[in-house]
Amino acid sequence: MSIKIAVVGAGSVGFTRAMIHDILCIPELRDAQVSLTDISRRNLDMVYRLVKRDVESAKLPAKITATADRRKAFKDANYVFSFVRVGGLEGFATDVDVPLKYGVDQCVGDTIGPGGIMYGQRTMPVLVEFSRDIVEVAAPGCLFLNYSNPMAMNTWACTRFGEGVKVVGLCHGVIGGHRLIAKAFGLKPEDVDIICAGINHQTWYISIKHKGMDMTRKLLAAFEKDPEIREAEKVRIDMLRRFGYFSTESNGHLSEYVPWYRKRVDEITRWINTDTWINGETGGYLRACTEGRNWFEHDFPNWMKEPPLKFGPEARGHEHGSYIVEALETGRTYRGHFNVVNRGIITNLPADAIVEVPGYVDANGMNIPVVGDLPLGCAAVCNASISVQRLSVEAAMSGNDELLRQAMMMDPLTGAVLNPPEIWQMVDDMLIAGEQWLPQYAKAVAEAKRRQKSGRRIPTRDFAGAARLHTKTVEEMEQDRETATRLASASEKAGKDRKKSR
Amino acid sequence: MSIKIAVVGAGSVGFTRAMIHDILCIPELRDAQVSLTDISRRNLDMVYRLVKRDVESAKLPAKITATADRRKAFKDANYVFSFVRVGGLEGFATDVDVPLKYGVDQCVGDTIGPGGIMYGQRTMPVLVEFSRDIVEVAAPGCLFLNYSNPMAMNTWACTRFGEGVKVVGLCHGVIGGHRLIAKAFGLKPEDVDIICAGINHQTWYISIKHKGMDMTRKLLAAFEKDPEIREAEKVRIDMLRRFGYFSTESNGHLSEYVPWYRKRVDEITRWINTDTWINGETGGYLRACTEGRNWFEHDFPNWMKEPPLKFGPEARGHEHGSYIVEALETGRTYRGHFNVVNRGIITNLPADAIVEVPGYVDANGMNIPVVGDLPLGCAAVCNASISVQRLSVEAAMSGNDELLRQAMMMDPLTGAVLNPPEIWQMVDDMLIAGEQWLPQYAKAVAEAKRRQKSGRRIPTRDFAGAARLHTKTVEEMEQDRETATRLASASEKAGKDRKKSR
Amino acid sequence: MSIKIAVVGAGSVGFTRAMIHDILCIPELRDAQVSLTDISRRNLDMVYRLVKRDVESAKLPAKITATADRRKAFKDANYVFSFVRVGGLEGFATDVDVPLKYGVDQCVGDTIGPGGIMYGQRTMPVLVEFSRDIVEVAAPGCLFLNYSNPMAMNTWACTRFGEGVKVVGLCHGVIGGHRLIAKAFGLKPEDVDIICAGINHQTWYISIKHKGMDMTRKLLAAFEKDPEIREAEKVRIDMLRRFGYFSTESNGHLSEYVPWYRKRVDEITRWINTDTWINGETGGYLRACTEGRNWFEHDFPNWMKEPPLKFGPEARGHEHGSYIVEALETGRTYRGHFNVVNRGIITNLPADAIVEVPGYVDANGMNIPVVGDLPLGCAAVCNASISVQRLSVEAAMSGNDELLRQAMMMDPLTGAVLNPPEIWQMVDDMLIAGEQWLPQYAKAVAEAKRRQKSGRRIPTRDFAGAARLHTKTVEEMEQDRETATRLASASEKAGKDRKKSR
Amino acid sequence: MSIKIAVVGAGSVGFTRAMIHDILCIPELRDAQVSLTDISRRNLDMVYRLVKRDVESAKLPAKITATADRRKAFKDANYVFSFVRVGGLEGFATDVDVPLKYGVDQCVGDTIGPGGIMYGQRTMPVLVEFSRDIVEVAAPGCLFLNYSNPMAMNTWACTRFGEGVKVVGLCHGVIGGHRLIAKAFGLKPEDVDIICAGINHQTWYISIKHKGMDMTRKLLAAFEKDPEIREAEKVRIDMLRRFGYFSTESNGHLSEYVPWYRKRVDEITRWINTDTWINGETGGYLRACTEGRNWFEHDFPNWMKEPPLKFGPEARGHEHGSYIVEALETGRTYRGHFNVVNRGIITNLPADAIVEVPGYVDANGMNIPVVGDLPLGCAAVCNASISVQRLSVEAAMSGNDELLRQAMMMDPLTGAVLNPPEIWQMVDDMLIAGEQWLPQYAKAVAEAKRRQKSGRRIPTRDFAGAARLHTKTVEEMEQDRETATRLASASEKAGKDRKKSR
Repeated sequence: MSIKIAVVGAGSVGFTRAMIHDILCIPELRDAQVSLTDISRRNLDMVYRLVKRDVESAKLPAKITATADRRKAFKDANYVFSFVRVGGLEGFATDVDVPLKYGVDQCVGDTIGPGGIMYGQRTMPVLVEFSRDIVEVAAPGCLFLNYSNPMAMNTWACTRFGEGVKVVGLCHGVIGGHRLIAKAFGLKPEDVDIICAGINHQTWYISIKHKGMDMTRKLLAAFEKDPEIREAEKVRIDMLRRFGYFSTESNGHLSEYVPWYRKRVDEITRWINTDTWINGETGGYLRACTEGRNWFEHDFPNWMKEPPLKFGPEARGHEHGSYIVEALETGRTYRGHFNVVNRGIITNLPADAIVEVPGYVDANGMNIPVVGDLPLGCAAVCNASISVQRLSVEAAMSGNDELLRQAMMMDPLTGAVLNPPEIWQMVDDMLIAGEQWLPQYAKAVAEAKRRQKSGRRIPTRDFAGAARLHTKTVEEMEQDRETATRLASASEKAGKDRKKSR
Repeated sequence: MSIKIAVVGAGSVGFTRAMIHDILCIPELRDAQVSLTDISRRNLDMVYRLVKRDVESAKLPAKITATADRRKAFKDANYVFSFVRVGGLEGFATDVDVPLKYGVDQCVGDTIGPGGIMYGQRTMPVLVEFSRDIVEVAAPGCLFLNYSNPMAMNTWACTRFGEGVKVVGLCHGVIGGHRLIAKAFGLKPEDVDIICAGINHQTWYISIKHKGMDMTRKLLAAFEKDPEIREAEKVRIDMLRRFGYFSTESNGHLSEYVPWYRKRVDEITRWINTDTWINGETGGYLRACTEGRNWFEHDFPNWMKEPPLKFGPEARGHEHGSYIVEALETGRTYRGHFNVVNRGIITNLPADAIVEVPGYVDANGMNIPVVGDLPLGCAAVCNASISVQRLSVEAAMSGNDELLRQAMMMDPLTGAVLNPPEIWQMVDDMLIAGEQWLPQYAKAVAEAKRRQKSGRRIPTRDFAGAARLHTKTVEEMEQDRETATRLASASEKAGKDRKKSR
Repeated sequence: MSIKIAVVGAGSVGFTRAMIHDILCIPELRDAQVSLTDISRRNLDMVYRLVKRDVESAKLPAKITATADRRKAFKDANYVFSFVRVGGLEGFATDVDVPLKYGVDQCVGDTIGPGGIMYGQRTMPVLVEFSRDIVEVAAPGCLFLNYSNPMAMNTWACTRFGEGVKVVGLCHGVIGGHRLIAKAFGLKPEDVDIICAGINHQTWYISIKHKGMDMTRKLLAAFEKDPEIREAEKVRIDMLRRFGYFSTESNGHLSEYVPWYRKRVDEITRWINTDTWINGETGGYLRACTEGRNWFEHDFPNWMKEPPLKFGPEARGHEHGSYIVEALETGRTYRGHFNVVNRGIITNLPADAIVEVPGYVDANGMNIPVVGDLPLGCAAVCNASISVQRLSVEAAMSGNDELLRQAMMMDPLTGAVLNPPEIWQMVDDMLIAGEQWLPQYAKAVAEAKRRQKSGRRIPTRDFAGAARLHTKTVEEMEQDRETATRLASASEKAGKDRKKSR
Repeated sequence: MSIKIAVVGAGSVGFTRAMIHDILCIPELRDAQVSLTDISRRNLDMVYRLVKRDVESAKLPAKITATADRRKAFKDANYVFSFVRVGGLEGFATDVDVPLKYGVDQCVGDTIGPGGIMYGQRTMPVLVEFSRDIVEVAAPGCLFLNYSNPMAMNTWACTRFGEGVKVVGLCHGVIGGHRLIAKAFGLKPEDVDIICAGINHQTWYISIKHKGMDMTRKLLAAFEKDPEIREAEKVRIDMLRRFGYFSTESNGHLSEYVPWYRKRVDEITRWINTDTWINGETGGYLRACTEGRNWFEHDFPNWMKEPPLKFGPEARGHEHGSYIVEALETGRTYRGHFNVVNRGIITNLPADAIVEVPGYVDANGMNIPVVGDLPLGCAAVCNASISVQRLSVEAAMSGNDELLRQAMMMDPLTGAVLNPPEIWQMVDDMLIAGEQWLPQYAKAVAEAKRRQKSGRRIPTRDFAGAARLHTKTVEEMEQDRETATRLASASEKAGKDRKKSR
């Protein structure tokens, strides 16, 4: 009997098309049923047409359908993928722009930080609703594979409030760093054995081995000798220098989770570079996504004229999702890094936190080994983020803005830049800006508006950030159609495609 | 650089010859150095000659040496295997015979029960000494693979008192049951996916799947339909009926860990059969080992005339050990079941217990996934044994006979058969009988002797047990040389070779 | 404002009258409102009339009411006491009599053992209902003080299924043993400092000090020198000898929780004496309760003619309940021993178990210190009971008779006496006997009846037990009215009044 | 038999004289033996003469001795008090002055922050040595009462490296806040029931009750109405506003543990006031201690002419120490707040952290109840400090400066003010400045000196801090002898005497 796969947020072209493609590359799963759903009819329809064309051209037995009715899509599904971005690019813009008025300069803003916290407030209730739907209508034992950020908070909310849904959070940050390490040592990735552990976007390469030899403490020297890496990864290398372990996270993203690199406006550019948005550009991911989405919508007719995708083992990508499905369905063991509730896996992080750790998947399920203690310094860095996440999860699901404000106070970058009255006013502004996606905060928004109108406001300023770049218009992108198309496919797989975007 | 493997208790012919053979079947490890050691010069020499002949005939680059100096054998070793049986068959006989005088009728007596507890008292201090030697002289990170019983107690003692030695306890009980389950369902073992969890010799098949379909609760019916299994496995099937899950342990062995099947002398034969000693024969394993050892010593000259072993992937056995070494050295993932400190792996067994659980081995090490809760009833059965083990470990390492007596009191079968004064007197008798291997109990032995001489003894009786068979003489075994040789090779791999021994 | 106290199972004359009395002896609480409720109108009315007369004679401002409507009684209550015995003496008789047919000879049968397990099946769902009522209608923060047995199972069920009710289990076993220890040492109880820890009815005096000097290990010798204690407490002294620590539990009660003293019919009388039922008489507590209840009902008119109780500090009893209320209301610190969820208090017992441990009560609430590890042997004994309790709790609340049967299998005395088919048949018989109080087992009862009728039964026998005494008729009791009245007041406070009952 | 009390760091006049006094006020302990020890002969002698005179004037049977030989002082002691300040005022000055050059402006600098971390590096190895001495030579079960700061780190080091010493950390911060709360509500302290929980100097009043009524959330309004408190406690009130719970810690001290109030030089004075050093003065405690110590040394001859102390219940102070000794020796229950290893007491703080929580002391020992979860925001604030402490403890005991630098990175105030290169250079400077008290860092100091000399330094500046006051000379203090004497007695009991110091 064929399996059923549902995709919610299927209008996310990069993710959806690639994931369906990868799954249908698996010989045993060529006859899968795929049901796409999205709240945007238009986006859903465009992606559906692309995917349908791919599958039909390849004459695969798979059955592709699209529906705006989420529960219909989830009905009897064995796997549900979520690629949703609640609030879309409009909501995302508020995550970046409001904090800038207060001097908090984020590169991505989707993990912690003011942006990540508010993104979580919008997203968690929605994903919890998905979880409940899955428990109610999907096939028994259905696995929910979540790609939506903020990954740790979202997975936390689903495990805590999702009625027992079986959920795993996925992110392929680990893969890029693995390649970088291999490059620095002049080795092939497959000859470098790694163990990563931590929390999503703050996972550490705690063991790096080559033919059984421990290379972990030799990495700093290797990076310092590589001029390209040295230039692109200044924050990551500095963290490696201070903490002894390399972070999975990209330079720009990492810089916004800690208090040290982005708190003084005039120093930010010392730690980042703007060759690739992911290396630290102010609002870099927002720009990339905006350009990509605009280009896709503009250029869609041409996409339908391009050759459809080819299927088969050789054509398959590296994203975790299809390998997990393969392992569970065929029993072929897959080792990846997964986001799950800690409960003793990393022994010096809290039991309730969502950790990113190695796991082995086979017909028996997802098997997550006990990792033991993280190095003390790495654990300390993760713990600071976990405090923010826990407050943020409880806030999002209860609509208690006092907890939300505390999450913001505890955020390392926010706490280093602002004082308490400023933080509270910024929360007010963000609640108001995101009102339409934050029904749980109706009361808090009303009070914030009252305060905003009262006139006794701390002055804010127009601040573009230390390193903000112009968002290209469609016309500008027309100058280099090939790059625009490549970036549009990749843009939603944020933090993942590390190729230069400028 | 070639790896070094040390084997202590190498005089155990069945184990040693097979393990060296399996390891040298691995292409990358054909040049391993193997160092054999034993306190019996004679046994060591016989096994050394057999192994050396195997390797030389196959023209392998491996280097085999033998030495009576344990620390020399361990020096720079990457892997140490222990096959020791402290006290030998002479000690083993006291484990079976003394309790029989009190009406405690054991089949094996090497796990818990009076026999297993006393076997542990003899063995734990010795294995802890090995552990310390390994930490001191072996290569850094050397893995200690322990096959000596009582497995759970021994591994517990090494992890708690072994100066941080990296130890894993190994037993292939899981494999035999897997074949039995597949047989009952008319499937191939490779088409039946299993998860076993529990404690050594009381591990449960908590998940049995065929192509993703859960078969766990269908097993009872399948067994009841199979006349051969129904006849051979009465205790196991009864436990499955009562507790809902199948035990890895053989019929006879299982019957001695619980209070229900061997407490009434006249009922024992209702639950066992004597076709194979492992199905319940009184002192069955002692008989099999005695015959095997006698035959080996008697027949050794002929063994040297037999064709030597062949090497190569196709010739390799299924025992865990060589697969673990292969996975660690080559990175090829191996899934097996291992005995390790619990610390949250089985969430409803104590953190300090040694549990037997699935693990994935690769170049990153032994990765033990979190299993979660055992079914309540299974956990309760395991917990009763764990209490015995914990008391037994603390007793063995401290020489505190009060704890030893409490271990015996808490033993399910002993507690169901005897009253406290009887238990204490039996402990006295066993301490005296094992005096030469129990230096830590010097004081307690002296007091026991005093009490024994005082004349105020509870009467004991000569009791052969409900199902004791005659131990064959060498002359009798000469009648069927082939069977005798096969059994002699297998006998020390107790509980493992399930082929009929009579 | 005056506090409100509700009593459910208020028809239990001994408990109810004494508890109300003790509370009204506290100067600050003389104006309490007391609401009595019971399902037996007749019992409720008799007790109400007695209590009302006490209060009115003393001209206390307290307000006493009685109602058959439980939720009305609980409405706005600050404290709810439960003295219920679900199934009454009729149900109780089945707990003792059915197991006797199988040779399981219990003294009390209200903790574990076949009797305790079935008593729990009747009681837990009812107490959980009370808990929910309390959460819904009582005053916020209302404390539920449970005296109903089986204490550990009942408190466990309330904490796990009681919607967050604040519950404490109370039993004054600790007090009697304290007096006994002081007697043996020739000291006053107030000069002997004790710490007790374990589980209800299996709590151990883990620290006994006199002026800072540790006396714990001197107790055995002291008891052995005291001819009266030596004669009355043979099981307790034997347990002390084997395990090193004294148990709080009475001789007869203790003997039925472990496999060693009551499994051989012809040995039981060696370990018990029948001067006082609590020292081991077969079904002793059932007899005492039956006599007491019959006498009370028969003699009630005379009770109303006796002088009413006097109030005031000097008249107050030692039962925990009133001291807890006093401490919470006035802030005067009270130290007692309480039954609460473990969660790390006793570090080597499971987190979910209900433990009996020291606590300090004051205006801040019930403060339960961390005890640390129990001695290993004591922990092992407790753990065996905890396994039974956990299975029993889950069974009672789910109506899953498979779990119920496993609880019975794991029961130490049952497991030592019976084999699995006997245990299952005994469970069938007990389910049928208790049908009217076991609505959750409707399906299992139906199947049991079918099996019972099928005729393929293991034979049972008429067995009065090793030490059963005649239950006195009312006429016989008339011979010594004073004793009859005293015992009737005390009988329901089982295991508590240690004065001789014969 | 009389008890023996040892005091190390006995030259600390305020602490030592008051503690001895309080203990000798207890009727049962008037005959205690007191042994004073200190590495400064001069200080020891002055305090010895004062105490001896007090005791002799009162004709108490107590025996006071002084010795420079620490182990002699500890020999057979039942209680050891530590009042040591390793490095004295000279070391303390480096804790305040070096960070000021980098713009880190501390008020006290003895808990976390650059000052607290370095103070810990000096002190922990010394207290661990004391612990080992106690285990070796003191009476069995001797209790180590530590008053030395940084309290949490010091107690942590003793519990982790102190060979099992029985240690408790003491601080009476809780008492001052209790009075303040009562004042705000217009109540007497004894009518306000409090539960405090957290970590030392970051403990929170998580429950405030008056006659059973919860006042916790009414406190902010009460404080805001009190002009005196509103003016003096701006940081504390702001924290209460943001986090919902009041901190035990004084305004100035609290301001330096979090990133929000002292990071911008020009804002510091908005949050503090300088009426009392404890409310926020830059280096305030250093100034107060320096003045006090100078005055004591200068004025000592006059102290000997003052009337000696009077003894008796009415004369006794409120400091915990004597009440603990009383409770343990007499069995009279004492409730206080104590610093102990967490291990599940506060369920959402790490098990290894040192927490400050309520406890009950009696003849059975120190009994620490389980508190449960801290409010989420409070836990998050504590967790940030705990990360710093853990790194600091491991650094101090291993001499690993990489961990020390990570502790400094993770420090909330330091991380908000400085960037990584600045932090590392500041650590270099502090290691060099404290070299004489940091033998474990010999290698790191040498490297730091090399770097310091290399000339490639980040520029530092002369910065007096936002609110530094002049340290009075002895001549200036002569103007108001009475105040000088009072402050000199109190100065070393820092954070405790809340009376105005200017």
